[in-house]
Amino acid sequence: MSTEPRNAEDALARLAAVIESRLPSRGGDPDKSYVARLLQRGPDAFLKKIGEEATEVVMAAKDADHGGDRAKVVNEVADLWFHSMVALAHYGFSPADVVAELERREGTSGIEEKALRKAQDREASND
Amino acid sequence: MSTEPRNAEDALARLAAVIESRLPSRGGDPDKSYVARLLQRGPDAFLKKIGEEATEVVMAAKDADHGGDRAKVVNEVADLWFHSMVALAHYGFSPADVVAELERREGTSGIEEKALRKAQDREASND
Amino acid sequence: MSTEPRNAEDALARLAAVIESRLPSRGGDPDKSYVARLLQRGPDAFLKKIGEEATEVVMAAKDADHGGDRAKVVNEVADLWFHSMVALAHYGFSPADVVAELERREGTSGIEEKALRKAQDREASND
Amino acid sequence: MSTEPRNAEDALARLAAVIESRLPSRGGDPDKSYVARLLQRGPDAFLKKIGEEATEVVMAAKDADHGGDRAKVVNEVADLWFHSMVALAHYGFSPADVVAELERREGTSGIEEKALRKAQDREASND
Repeated sequence: MSTEPRNAEDALARLAAVIESRLPSRGGDPDKSYVARLLQRGPDAFLKKIGEEATEVVMAAKDADHGGDRAKVVNEVADLWFHSMVALAHYGFSPADVVAELERREGTSGIEEKALRKAQDREASND
Repeated sequence: MSTEPRNAEDALARLAAVIESRLPSRGGDPDKSYVARLLQRGPDAFLKKIGEEATEVVMAAKDADHGGDRAKVVNEVADLWFHSMVALAHYGFSPADVVAELERREGTSGIEEKALRKAQDREASND
Repeated sequence: MSTEPRNAEDALARLAAVIESRLPSRGGDPDKSYVARLLQRGPDAFLKKIGEEATEVVMAAKDADHGGDRAKVVNEVADLWFHSMVALAHYGFSPADVVAELERREGTSGIEEKALRKAQDREASND
Repeated sequence: MSTEPRNAEDALARLAAVIESRLPSRGGDPDKSYVARLLQRGPDAFLKKIGEEATEVVMAAKDADHGGDRAKVVNEVADLWFHSMVALAHYGFSPADVVAELERREGTSGIEEKALRKAQDREASND
């Protein structure tokens, strides 16, 4: 009997496992699963969704800025991350790879400083 | 002494804590931190980055489709998720909220079936 | 009998007039016209299409870079401009306003030089 | 002496000619021209701008919806169309090709009806 709490990492890994099980090479059935269908239709289908969901994040955020429901931002980011995970599965990666990359950057001293210098230069040049 | 392995959830939560510490209301210094600068410039600055990074995910994926380096897809998804986390922090949310939303959907029976029916209808109407 | 050649300006102005006639305030019928339907559904409907079509331009262009059909780029830019024109109509503008703005910039000496300095600064800061 | 009024078509064609003169194959100088620089840096540079400018159109439109300056929508659409024209030049096309494609669709009877049926199906499936 497991009493281990389910945590977010487990959740992302579990969701990634479900998505990967929908890959055509894993026997995903496009007549039964939305993800299997997206994966079967190929990259343009899920990449287009990434562009679309990014736009929806921006729209939800702008509405929130103007007094709208902030929770919609979370829903749209969830859509964006979900479709990112479909793309990751197609290319043989998982959210753990993304998180590892984020950790690697966090661990690299000077990352924020470099990004900052670039941002400052950009803004200076906008004057 | 903890020997517990660091997991993705811990990593995301730690990164979110760093981002939150850069909020203007938390004393984030735009002269020292890229994230503090983005947050200080306001929503348009980081929302524009989300649109830009989504486009970069799409470009990296198309290159991978045509024989390019698949690892670039991970890097670009990391950029996209990172800037999503900056937006989440601004609106008072964390990656844990996004993961909870994804879990909620996963737990809702019939979700994939409904999304599937919609996708099938869409494709039928494209004929 | 008119022998006047139809030119591109006429075409854009004519298309804009058709789109404007689909505005709800002009009696556009969402049961008979795609544009009337988009306009009736409101900004989020056509703004989402702009994000989607921009992504499709990028995908078509990347395919062209890798040997695909270049003509698809034209088709996708046409979709993008078309949906931009739906947005313009909603906000009370026409393609002529966009062209006037482009002309204004063209006529402003030093415009390219300023954009160039900004681009050079950005690239320098990416090293 | 021509007293012919300058029309939008002329303006777009003139601007396209300027952009084409910045192509590396036409001797465009990246040290003197922003467009020449974008074209020299290659597709990813100007495609990224298309994603970015589409996002800026969406943000300006949302601000207009919430009482902001509607004229900003025109400025952002101008940026989007301008960078689309840079892409068109790179792939050997002009705005006239886009306008011809739009005219071809306009002239094809039943186009709006087909798009409408698709949109109706999509919305029905969203219930």
